[in-house]
Amino acid sequence: MTEHQHQFDGNVGQKPWITVLLAVLAVCLQSTAFATDPLPSWNDGSAKTSIIDFVECAKSDGCEKYIAPEDRIAVFDNDGTLWSEQPAYFQLFFAFDRIREMADDHPEWQSEQPFKAVLDGNLEEVARSGKEGLLKIVAATHAGMTTEEFATIVHEWIETAKHPTKKVLYTELVYQPMLEVLDYLRANGFKTYIVSGGGIEFMRVFAERVYGVPPEQVIGSSIVTEFQLREGKPVILRKAKLDFIDDKDGKPVAINKFIGRRPVAAFGNSDGDLQMLQWTATRTGPSLCVLVHHTDGTREWAYDIDSHIGRLDKALTAAQENDWSVVDMKSDWKVIYPD
Amino acid sequence: MTEHQHQFDGNVGQKPWITVLLAVLAVCLQSTAFATDPLPSWNDGSAKTSIIDFVECAKSDGCEKYIAPEDRIAVFDNDGTLWSEQPAYFQLFFAFDRIREMADDHPEWQSEQPFKAVLDGNLEEVARSGKEGLLKIVAATHAGMTTEEFATIVHEWIETAKHPTKKVLYTELVYQPMLEVLDYLRANGFKTYIVSGGGIEFMRVFAERVYGVPPEQVIGSSIVTEFQLREGKPVILRKAKLDFIDDKDGKPVAINKFIGRRPVAAFGNSDGDLQMLQWTATRTGPSLCVLVHHTDGTREWAYDIDSHIGRLDKALTAAQENDWSVVDMKSDWKVIYPD
Repeated sequence: MTEHQHQFDGNVGQKPWITVLLAVLAVCLQSTAFATDPLPSWNDGSAKTSIIDFVECAKSDGCEKYIAPEDRIAVFDNDGTLWSEQPAYFQLFFAFDRIREMADDHPEWQSEQPFKAVLDGNLEEVARSGKEGLLKIVAATHAGMTTEEFATIVHEWIETAKHPTKKVLYTELVYQPMLEVLDYLRANGFKTYIVSGGGIEFMRVFAERVYGVPPEQVIGSSIVTEFQLREGKPVILRKAKLDFIDDKDGKPVAINKFIGRRPVAAFGNSDGDLQMLQWTATRTGPSLCVLVHHTDGTREWAYDIDSHIGRLDKALTAAQENDWSVVDMKSDWKVIYPD
Repeated sequence: MTEHQHQFDGNVGQKPWITVLLAVLAVCLQSTAFATDPLPSWNDGSAKTSIIDFVECAKSDGCEKYIAPEDRIAVFDNDGTLWSEQPAYFQLFFAFDRIREMADDHPEWQSEQPFKAVLDGNLEEVARSGKEGLLKIVAATHAGMTTEEFATIVHEWIETAKHPTKKVLYTELVYQPMLEVLDYLRANGFKTYIVSGGGIEFMRVFAERVYGVPPEQVIGSSIVTEFQLREGKPVILRKAKLDFIDDKDGKPVAINKFIGRRPVAAFGNSDGDLQMLQWTATRTGPSLCVLVHHTDGTREWAYDIDSHIGRLDKALTAAQENDWSVVDMKSDWKVIYPD
């Protein structure tokens, strides 16, 4: 072998060596992607399959149901879809805890409804106070402070308060299988939004840490806020006046206002999500609509048509008629909550 | 030289060779980054320097004014900040063009104000009709159709309509130097938002194509919308009722509602932007506030304290008092519009 030959081998052989290495690496990475189950807490079944089939095709240019990256908007209800909502919406427990904390400064609450009922722990009496009573509770606990003060109050509560029967932090009652769906969608270029009847500024305090959803992707109900200069310093004040209820018809309206595009995927669990699912399902192009059905009375709660909270009736009928995916929590989910 | 020596050189020499190549490449790329002016349409001066200094430090971990990626929110007024706004807001010309188009179906407009004034091309008479007249114009031209129908109407207009004096498409009247700022911020991990008194659904039609700002990052004034099923098909209807005016105090309120974080950078041009700039300037941590001052009567328009459109008075005083950056369009910008 001459010196010339060696140099020739060295120079040209170098490129194929790198090319082969890169090719092997690419194949390995691809195999890993296919081998890893993106939804490990889901049992095999039609619900899991419908989600995976949708995402795998949506991300693959050339696939029949491919979706352009900018259109990959997925919306999720929160209460009953991303975390539990029984025996009442968790935000209501926040309000009750606030009333108990504030009671010393409000001796009149000992005899004034619905505050008396809250202090007596009489949930049924609170319910009897109706919408008017609820608004009084919201006004007393959610208004009259700046947005930053409110965020601090919610933050302290969510870090410490325990669920009345499960005796764990509320953030421990998020659904592990849905956290996996959120991650899986984001890993494939979807923007994940929360679209909930819950308070927008309440959820934003923990949505990023708990769900990986940043504040600007959290949409919810709101009260009126007002910009003010306090001794030259700007603040935004929370007023005791309803601004918007992000439920039922309000959900597509809010999606249109906040996002300005139709979602391609929507996840809900109750009749309050029906219109959001309809709005998603009837877009031009592929879509995925998923309804979480609370069927597990042992590990979580079992409820649908007769429930005051998270009533599921019309949306279930619509799901059957329109071939939306229905998650049977009892059989579809290996675990409910994170370990 | 023996064969052994040659093999030794070949095997081991390969790695340093690649390493050196990568190192050289890295240095080249870095030099290019520094050598390329991110704002080529800006003349050197305090305005340009303030923007570049802010961004270069914001993106550099360890720099005194470093900003975490999730906090890199920049907000931009639209009319007078990203595109021209004279002799009237461009959306008003859209409304006037609509009225002229619809006039055949509305013979009553020949004698009914403010429509008669619009059809006569009498801008002063339109202005005299005040807020009430303006609302009639908005109701007639912006409401009574679905959101999708409205988007189609705006799309057709923006693609064809010409500015009354400049005789070019309205989208040709965007500011080249500001397009560079938008790109520069995004290239450094900033999320760019429009926060404008203009109609949210009007701007969303072209903001992505023209500014690179997606619909979900466009915030503006709105009318009430309503979800309806039309023969089973969901639509969102635009109603003839004001929902929200995204101007002055409304801007920080809308920023808080839509984004849920305080911006770190804000760009405006009029007193309508003052509160947004105040809200940004008083966050905890570094911020950049920039005011575009219309000083170029030859290439664009020169106006400030005496102008009905884009009046700039209090915000200019605030800029001087708070050391915000003021752009002198005449001296700071090499070009106004894209080539």
